[in-house]
Amino acid sequence: MGKKKIFNDPVYGFVSVPYGILFDLVEHPFFQRLRRIKQVSMTHYVYPGALHTRFHHALGAMHLMTQAIEELRSKGTEITEEEAEAARIAILLHDIGHGPFSHTLEHTLINITHEELSLLFMQQLNEEFGGALNLAISIFTGEYPKKFLHQLISGQLDMDRMDYLNRDSFFTGVYEGVIGYDRIIKMLAVFEDELVVEEKGIYSIEKFLMARRLMYWQVYLHKTVLSAEQMLIATLKRAKALSREGVELQVPPSMQFFLRNEFSATDFQQRRPELLKHFARLDDYDIFSALKAFIEGPDPLLAYLSECIVDRRLFKLELQNQPFSEEYKEQIQSCIRKKFDFAESGLSHLFLEGEERNNTYSIARDEIKILFKNRKVLPFSECSDVNIPSGIVTKYYIGYPKECLV
Amino acid sequence: MGKKKIFNDPVYGFVSVPYGILFDLVEHPFFQRLRRIKQVSMTHYVYPGALHTRFHHALGAMHLMTQAIEELRSKGTEITEEEAEAARIAILLHDIGHGPFSHTLEHTLINITHEELSLLFMQQLNEEFGGALNLAISIFTGEYPKKFLHQLISGQLDMDRMDYLNRDSFFTGVYEGVIGYDRIIKMLAVFEDELVVEEKGIYSIEKFLMARRLMYWQVYLHKTVLSAEQMLIATLKRAKALSREGVELQVPPSMQFFLRNEFSATDFQQRRPELLKHFARLDDYDIFSALKAFIEGPDPLLAYLSECIVDRRLFKLELQNQPFSEEYKEQIQSCIRKKFDFAESGLSHLFLEGEERNNTYSIARDEIKILFKNRKVLPFSECSDVNIPSGIVTKYYIGYPKECLV
Amino acid sequence: MGKKKIFNDPVYGFVSVPYGILFDLVEHPFFQRLRRIKQVSMTHYVYPGALHTRFHHALGAMHLMTQAIEELRSKGTEITEEEAEAARIAILLHDIGHGPFSHTLEHTLINITHEELSLLFMQQLNEEFGGALNLAISIFTGEYPKKFLHQLISGQLDMDRMDYLNRDSFFTGVYEGVIGYDRIIKMLAVFEDELVVEEKGIYSIEKFLMARRLMYWQVYLHKTVLSAEQMLIATLKRAKALSREGVELQVPPSMQFFLRNEFSATDFQQRRPELLKHFARLDDYDIFSALKAFIEGPDPLLAYLSECIVDRRLFKLELQNQPFSEEYKEQIQSCIRKKFDFAESGLSHLFLEGEERNNTYSIARDEIKILFKNRKVLPFSECSDVNIPSGIVTKYYIGYPKECLV
Amino acid sequence: MGKKKIFNDPVYGFVSVPYGILFDLVEHPFFQRLRRIKQVSMTHYVYPGALHTRFHHALGAMHLMTQAIEELRSKGTEITEEEAEAARIAILLHDIGHGPFSHTLEHTLINITHEELSLLFMQQLNEEFGGALNLAISIFTGEYPKKFLHQLISGQLDMDRMDYLNRDSFFTGVYEGVIGYDRIIKMLAVFEDELVVEEKGIYSIEKFLMARRLMYWQVYLHKTVLSAEQMLIATLKRAKALSREGVELQVPPSMQFFLRNEFSATDFQQRRPELLKHFARLDDYDIFSALKAFIEGPDPLLAYLSECIVDRRLFKLELQNQPFSEEYKEQIQSCIRKKFDFAESGLSHLFLEGEERNNTYSIARDEIKILFKNRKVLPFSECSDVNIPSGIVTKYYIGYPKECLV
Repeated sequence: MGKKKIFNDPVYGFVSVPYGILFDLVEHPFFQRLRRIKQVSMTHYVYPGALHTRFHHALGAMHLMTQAIEELRSKGTEITEEEAEAARIAILLHDIGHGPFSHTLEHTLINITHEELSLLFMQQLNEEFGGALNLAISIFTGEYPKKFLHQLISGQLDMDRMDYLNRDSFFTGVYEGVIGYDRIIKMLAVFEDELVVEEKGIYSIEKFLMARRLMYWQVYLHKTVLSAEQMLIATLKRAKALSREGVELQVPPSMQFFLRNEFSATDFQQRRPELLKHFARLDDYDIFSALKAFIEGPDPLLAYLSECIVDRRLFKLELQNQPFSEEYKEQIQSCIRKKFDFAESGLSHLFLEGEERNNTYSIARDEIKILFKNRKVLPFSECSDVNIPSGIVTKYYIGYPKECLV
Repeated sequence: MGKKKIFNDPVYGFVSVPYGILFDLVEHPFFQRLRRIKQVSMTHYVYPGALHTRFHHALGAMHLMTQAIEELRSKGTEITEEEAEAARIAILLHDIGHGPFSHTLEHTLINITHEELSLLFMQQLNEEFGGALNLAISIFTGEYPKKFLHQLISGQLDMDRMDYLNRDSFFTGVYEGVIGYDRIIKMLAVFEDELVVEEKGIYSIEKFLMARRLMYWQVYLHKTVLSAEQMLIATLKRAKALSREGVELQVPPSMQFFLRNEFSATDFQQRRPELLKHFARLDDYDIFSALKAFIEGPDPLLAYLSECIVDRRLFKLELQNQPFSEEYKEQIQSCIRKKFDFAESGLSHLFLEGEERNNTYSIARDEIKILFKNRKVLPFSECSDVNIPSGIVTKYYIGYPKECLV
Repeated sequence: MGKKKIFNDPVYGFVSVPYGILFDLVEHPFFQRLRRIKQVSMTHYVYPGALHTRFHHALGAMHLMTQAIEELRSKGTEITEEEAEAARIAILLHDIGHGPFSHTLEHTLINITHEELSLLFMQQLNEEFGGALNLAISIFTGEYPKKFLHQLISGQLDMDRMDYLNRDSFFTGVYEGVIGYDRIIKMLAVFEDELVVEEKGIYSIEKFLMARRLMYWQVYLHKTVLSAEQMLIATLKRAKALSREGVELQVPPSMQFFLRNEFSATDFQQRRPELLKHFARLDDYDIFSALKAFIEGPDPLLAYLSECIVDRRLFKLELQNQPFSEEYKEQIQSCIRKKFDFAESGLSHLFLEGEERNNTYSIARDEIKILFKNRKVLPFSECSDVNIPSGIVTKYYIGYPKECLV
Repeated sequence: MGKKKIFNDPVYGFVSVPYGILFDLVEHPFFQRLRRIKQVSMTHYVYPGALHTRFHHALGAMHLMTQAIEELRSKGTEITEEEAEAARIAILLHDIGHGPFSHTLEHTLINITHEELSLLFMQQLNEEFGGALNLAISIFTGEYPKKFLHQLISGQLDMDRMDYLNRDSFFTGVYEGVIGYDRIIKMLAVFEDELVVEEKGIYSIEKFLMARRLMYWQVYLHKTVLSAEQMLIATLKRAKALSREGVELQVPPSMQFFLRNEFSATDFQQRRPELLKHFARLDDYDIFSALKAFIEGPDPLLAYLSECIVDRRLFKLELQNQPFSEEYKEQIQSCIRKKFDFAESGLSHLFLEGEERNNTYSIARDEIKILFKNRKVLPFSECSDVNIPSGIVTKYYIGYPKECLV
């Protein structure tokens, strides 16, 4: 009875997955792994509800894709059943290449982007499913002629973004980040094979961009979140360095494999089935379990960092619009050297620095297009009289133990 | 600026913790550990949003306690500042003794209830905080004369239950389980030192009991959840048995400690600081990390069970009102023996059986009391003309690999 | 662009009406009139948000009908396009016969039920639309063979009830009355042409019945609401009596017509177009406007009652399970006689009495049927172990000016 | 039991009014009248849920005032009990001078602003309550030294605006207009007696301004709403003109009074008790009741306009950034003259024209001030890098019967 599997989703109520290839993909261990990868890394250290996973996000994005396709069809855009399914597969798998703690540890444990990995996973699954993902892959990579299908997966108004902004604001409890996803979807249209927004949607787009901006500064680049994430990176780097030097660390075997070896994108392409299998065993659980083992381990720097993360004694993080002066940094570093025995070898792990960027809305690539009633299409920035900063905003940060607070 | 720490909570909006002992307790590693213990164990295998933790629940229950105290005071019940703080401490810490996967693994890794452990943690913290928890402990254990304070922590209408029913239905997305917690709190009163509900709250109580009932059968005792949890127990039992036999298993050191040794409640009392320290390093992360290590480990039964859990290939679970017939069970067991090489030693891990109980509302102990306008108090069951089953409902289950589905 | 009209609905987000007959019916003055008839009469005197109208309710019920039909079709029940449209027409128009203040003034201004009037309106519209409502009328009256279509319009789980319970709890802010309408709809099925609920929906049904019960006692039969409504009835009766005696009252012409004449159901059938036209000009606005005119009018009793309603100085209302004693009533009546000059002729307007009934779930007629996995169907009362009072609960009330409070 | 009256509010859950002067004011007929005045006039013709009243809005604004005062006090701003009560009185009564259909009919029936009337009502109530409103009036008029109290009632971030944006988006179902009122309130502070927003609130303010902008164009200045409102104005003007010419119209007596006479602000000041009494009997109900009477009345133009409004056959409304050309207007007017017999005398009632303005955020008067951690205060426009149009945006409109659509 019923030809679909129904999932409860606090965000949308119910999300359904039709039995067939979509359901089979959801059941696959590669996809089930996403249950163990948090969508927003360490954000829960500030917003305790933000424990939602890539699994739930992928289902949600697929749900919105279904709605978007229905809307476009009702407006006369032809989308075949095959294309619809392929678009849903592509959005379902768009993030399948994410590793533990998503973006945070990207390039720390392995040196390959999550998009490349997503494609490798899709290719692997395509083999297992006898070519059933061909069309989905072609949409995902942007090769398929109906460009708007790719834009629904990756573009200024893609279903990925619609879902994550919505879902992240829901689970963080930052309700100001909630976007009118349903209204925006109702205003999507296709014009000359490109995704556009109907004229009356301009104010919704303005508000969408503002909500996105708010989520960036209030959640994604929150100082405390940044601190926790940078500490996690420093800790993993330390573990990796020690491992390469031959120090024996008590970490789960799946993690051991990636601590001891360095794999490039080429390695992954050449040894795809083997490396994906290893990679697919790695998730958030290993990292935290390892942190706790490090506390009891041989390296005092690693133990210190790990305990700080586990017990949430986070570094002070300062964020500003200009680079920090050398003087100021030197002052803090000298304190660190004084207070920590192991600072010698580990200064770069105790004094963290870098830049963060928020790009609310980049004019350069692929602007949102507005469709007017007279069938004219204009870029959003020429239609709205709100001037939203379009360049990249860069902020500089430093982080260090609170023992050295000036 | 501001004398309180504010947490975002998707359920209540904002939850605030005053600086002082309450905030210090929240910051303590013992309490921070609750961030790594899911409130409802494996429920997220059915309801993917249900990843919320004991940490968030404890904050939420404390939030409701603040509201309840305010309400009772506004009705003339005297509650001193000290009592109010102690009641909030007690509710904040009421679940601090929970181990990995909360109720699921209670009595599997160690043989002591979570309530006993909560008390031990409170005593330990009381020492660290120089006796500041004395009053809280006295309320928690029920020794304090103002009985209603204890009832707010543990009773038919305690703030624990108010929060978890609400929070669990929120994060599962089973919105039918949402209860009118704010209305119920507005109808609480104290009569002769006992917590009562004002007359006009009868329909809210009926609905509360019905929501609770629904949550039991739809969420807490959901067949698939039960299957996952029973499989987890069987797996851990197997790991423990192997460990005791001297088999070397790759598990995190904190877990090693409890796999190799059996500690009783008495041990915990006598070696409190040491054992609590070990216990406090153990959480959900270790379990799943260990499961993945088991997959590669030496024992095929352990590997099989672990992989089933990790990849979510769950046992078929049957649930019924009568015990299963020996014949039927034998039929399945014989199939298991045939299909699994390692079944010999492990039948009890592959064929799971037991009972589950739902006790919506037990008349026996501590009934909800209704306060009428004429100052008469009656037990709820004598006031409502809805007849809610008051005895314990027992259901019998068996679980087994889908390979042996008949 | 787009073949449907979209309405914003705070309850469901968006409700869409396809262009064609459904949209044309919505645009018809008969249907637009429902914009001026509040769904829950004087309830807003207790719950200030409850100003929603029959118009919004009818759209909402039609929205749910669309969902229910989709669900049933997905489970294999055949419903043709024509039947689907007819069912939506029938639910859209099911309440079109309601007069000012809905149930409250039924039988006060005219002596005919709103169901009879709804049918008359449908017949009138059917003529205007050249027979396009034939099938809808046949479903509405229960003559159409597929019985479940009628049950979706009028039955224990019809879309009318689904919407009004939901909508009323939303706009009153009594969120405890919210029902899991989406889950219940997902569990509907058809068995031997009758509407049934799948087994796993039992707890949702229990909770639905409990929510309905709560709404009855907390909202629909709230003492203050009852007081306001009974006062309104008494006032209109007085106005009618005076009118018949030839007293000139300043009321809107549409109302004048029904104050001066008494029309029976037969009159309406025989002079349908004419009487419906008059009736369709009458709504909530006339009543309140008239009340204010009465305040300045010639009859002191009518002025007193009207001013009490307009300024919300409502009668004291007492509600109990037994009839009130003659003694008690006499005591109050004698006070009224003393305090009010005009009491002589108007005692029955100043001392209100009557009974109210709540019938949560009547076993007698048309029980909810549960469909088990083994294709057996049982009445709900034999499946649930919650014993919900199935008989009619009668409560007795008296109402009188607060000047005579004892 | 309980020293406050609790109202259910779908927006905030519960709103409580302490017994005492605040409750007595709520009970006063002047305030009860607000139950019969819709907050957003004819908006419900587009958003059917938008039937909420000035009554509910005033209670909601008072609720937010309580929260704001609590927040400011917790940050060390001294606010006495007297001042707190006065501020709540002032916000409760800030809109009490609104007449039928709020802004729409302002200056149509009587020639005096609603603010002037609000003050007159407060003065009248102050006399009735023996001077108890002295402080409230002084805060309302801005004479009281603690300027921030006035700013909470009337300013860029006043509680009036917080509530209406929130409430209007709630009841329209335009959830994109929802603002983070609770977060904004949590970020309010007082600096040198002025209301400021803490630094970290900048993104919330950006989003607040964007939500407000969206509400303007999507709701308040919606073309169809504008059409309905302008038609209502034209209709009332016609009725007034006829009345002055001595034509007998069937309108409620309270309305008669204002149709036949023209009262100025000076009249209201000099004959305050009498004129307020008349005015307080006038509300939305009279207007719609009168419209229906006009349909049967002697003047064909008035009948035509009234029927169009009642049956929601609204004029076509065009809105653009430049004034319409004389040519285009002449073309339409000549059509009107041709098609309507009564156009001669009524052209200005059948061809509507005018301008509408949206002033999202005016820099000129009273900018939002941001308080930085270093205690520096800057105007918002110098802190945010989003450039929000600060000047007044003017749009031009014409409206005319759809019979003359080109």
